[in-house]
Amino acid sequence: MAGYKDMTREELLQLKTGLEAQYREAQGRGLKLDMSRGKPSAAQLDISMGMMDVLTSDSDLKCEQGVDCRNYGILDGIVEAKRLLSDMMEVPIDNIIIYGNSSLNVMYDTVARSMTHGVMGSTPWCKLDKVKFLCPVPGYDRHFAITEYFGIEMINVPMTENGPDMDMVEKLVAEDEAVKGIWCVPKYSNPQGYSYSDETVLRFANLKPAAKDFRIYWDNAYGIHHLYDENQAELVEILAACEKAGNPDMVYKFSSTSKISFPGSGVAAIAASEANLVDIRKQMTIQTIGHDKVNQLRHARFFKDINGMREHMRKHADIMRPKFEAVINILEEELGGLGIGSWTKPMGGYFISFDAMEGCAKAIVAKCKDAGVVMTKAGATFPYGLDPKDSNIRIAPSFPTLEEMTEAAKLFALCVKLVSVEKLLETKEA
Amino acid sequence: MAGYKDMTREELLQLKTGLEAQYREAQGRGLKLDMSRGKPSAAQLDISMGMMDVLTSDSDLKCEQGVDCRNYGILDGIVEAKRLLSDMMEVPIDNIIIYGNSSLNVMYDTVARSMTHGVMGSTPWCKLDKVKFLCPVPGYDRHFAITEYFGIEMINVPMTENGPDMDMVEKLVAEDEAVKGIWCVPKYSNPQGYSYSDETVLRFANLKPAAKDFRIYWDNAYGIHHLYDENQAELVEILAACEKAGNPDMVYKFSSTSKISFPGSGVAAIAASEANLVDIRKQMTIQTIGHDKVNQLRHARFFKDINGMREHMRKHADIMRPKFEAVINILEEELGGLGIGSWTKPMGGYFISFDAMEGCAKAIVAKCKDAGVVMTKAGATFPYGLDPKDSNIRIAPSFPTLEEMTEAAKLFALCVKLVSVEKLLETKEA
Repeated sequence: MAGYKDMTREELLQLKTGLEAQYREAQGRGLKLDMSRGKPSAAQLDISMGMMDVLTSDSDLKCEQGVDCRNYGILDGIVEAKRLLSDMMEVPIDNIIIYGNSSLNVMYDTVARSMTHGVMGSTPWCKLDKVKFLCPVPGYDRHFAITEYFGIEMINVPMTENGPDMDMVEKLVAEDEAVKGIWCVPKYSNPQGYSYSDETVLRFANLKPAAKDFRIYWDNAYGIHHLYDENQAELVEILAACEKAGNPDMVYKFSSTSKISFPGSGVAAIAASEANLVDIRKQMTIQTIGHDKVNQLRHARFFKDINGMREHMRKHADIMRPKFEAVINILEEELGGLGIGSWTKPMGGYFISFDAMEGCAKAIVAKCKDAGVVMTKAGATFPYGLDPKDSNIRIAPSFPTLEEMTEAAKLFALCVKLVSVEKLLETKEA
Repeated sequence: MAGYKDMTREELLQLKTGLEAQYREAQGRGLKLDMSRGKPSAAQLDISMGMMDVLTSDSDLKCEQGVDCRNYGILDGIVEAKRLLSDMMEVPIDNIIIYGNSSLNVMYDTVARSMTHGVMGSTPWCKLDKVKFLCPVPGYDRHFAITEYFGIEMINVPMTENGPDMDMVEKLVAEDEAVKGIWCVPKYSNPQGYSYSDETVLRFANLKPAAKDFRIYWDNAYGIHHLYDENQAELVEILAACEKAGNPDMVYKFSSTSKISFPGSGVAAIAASEANLVDIRKQMTIQTIGHDKVNQLRHARFFKDINGMREHMRKHADIMRPKFEAVINILEEELGGLGIGSWTKPMGGYFISFDAMEGCAKAIVAKCKDAGVVMTKAGATFPYGLDPKDSNIRIAPSFPTLEEMTEAAKLFALCVKLVSVEKLLETKEA
């Protein structure tokens, strides 16, 4: 089929009539599908159900340190959980602190602490006139929500297949002392599924920030979340790279088991240099008597070690992979060659990123909604919800079943076509 | 026996020789006991072990709202947990938000949010020159640690058997707009075990604060933690009282199941007016994807309802009561009539408060430590760790076994005698 942009007004009008009929038919089917959030499906949750049987009333709930996990004590995580998560995060066990159930909460805490107490002795950010964060775009809406909540100015940095535009990052970080951080999802990025190249990571590690309290917020959310056994993304480890580059304190690395065991009932962690961890523990010791050690023990005994965790992730992949492939195949079949959109083909993570023609994303998402398919809000992948081109849409294939996903993807493709035709007709008014 | 203060120098010297011999003998026994923290004993933890069997891989993990507790979703708590904790906290179910594992963390968050975002639209406290909190003393060290961490000035308010000195509270709150809060443990207070009288609670509810963003931080940590079936403390409910007094937004009420199920693996909550909860949810929605719903469900299904919880608390009381009684009996036997100390006789909670002669607390705690008995640090019950009279010592009888507790209490009484004699001798120098 020819590209839409080459069609005449008459051809487009004719196409539109046909697409509208299809759309009305789709509306009639009363779909109710959700492709909006990176939520595991019930089938994925089922593979972790063994976790519910790991600890019983007969279990010895002492951890290796000899501490009764049921009681108070141990602020920063039991050693079993530290070992498991440090292996998962590819950092030494001494560079990790175990938190509660949500890495988002750890990131929030990290920004909140910097606001009120600064970073390793720096001026609290709330005392500064201006604090800025760099935001690779498209990116993760919940990152941007945290910085927006604290009144931090966000600066868009374009993403490439190899990571953020590092020329721009290096320049902004070196020139502006108000730039205190950058949000990164380095592996299988949200929403594009891109993984930072070795060069990108090394350029990060070698940044020369004007601000001493500049930190890289390295959200390694999908560190072991591969879709395939082959061609898995392998990143240069950022903590080690920063240390080697003489910037040992420049990075916070975040992760959790939310998309490994149970979302909301997992275990989160931060990894950083000892100097950073000392700073963080000063807060922690005021903030909490410690996180849920019984759940830490449950995770450690269920997975046993990183090999058990990797094996477990294969089961997730077996469920996720067909859905990703279905979406990508449908996009290819329905939209391939039409010149009205492009999309990523991730090897891991939770999202596919779709770029529509400029000015079409909001209309596409609205049309999907009117036919019963909820997508992530258009603009959500940009700071302040403002996509300058109104083009990017995040597709989250995990939650619906394969059949639902197929149906939803077809409806999405139909909406892309219909909105694109309407857009092209605007420029070809008679 | 006569009061120590009436003794001559010679009598005191003779007494001292005998006490020193006893002390050396005690040191020789190599004790290793801990009366420092309000930590449940292993026997208490055992009574909650059934909790580990409530949810298994065969369980339906959907909550009453039909949401799969394993997955993301439901920010402020599943309805089962809300019902259980709102009954426990004596507030309507709509006035509660369920949090993670620690009410301390909820209090920290509450202060932190006020620092960066103010309270229901007020100026963020970090933008103010001065913020002050009232601190009934003696009180809870971890409360004081939070306000100290945020640079909030703390003002001591003396405790009485009926609660804080309300004349002073009313005056300070009404006169000074910088006073933004007061820390309260209203029932079985930490460390005295006092419960606020009806009059005290009503005077709290009718405060006329100069600051619109003044809040009462009502830490109802021991709401159902009675030691006896009779004469249980029953407080006027503060949320309802504040509403009735025309001050619906003036109080945050905190609680958790940390000393009901497992410390560190319990469920915490905040109760407040709808307007306050709207303010709090604005933060929560940025801060987290929600707390551990599986653990909420585990608690709800284990306790079933507030009656189940009250029944459970009787088992705790059966373990705690003999320890409290042992300590109090030993203090009575060893120190009664000597005029060198007074102590509280709580009907619930986790602590006994001991007041030594002025200038003796630090020395007593140090002497205990040198004989292998760890007490809470002297001064800890006051802001900045500064007890102006160096007199108050918090006794935490829960963690050791009854036998250990008895031994520890005897050693403590011995140290009180010895230090008191030394103190009295200072004033009677030859």
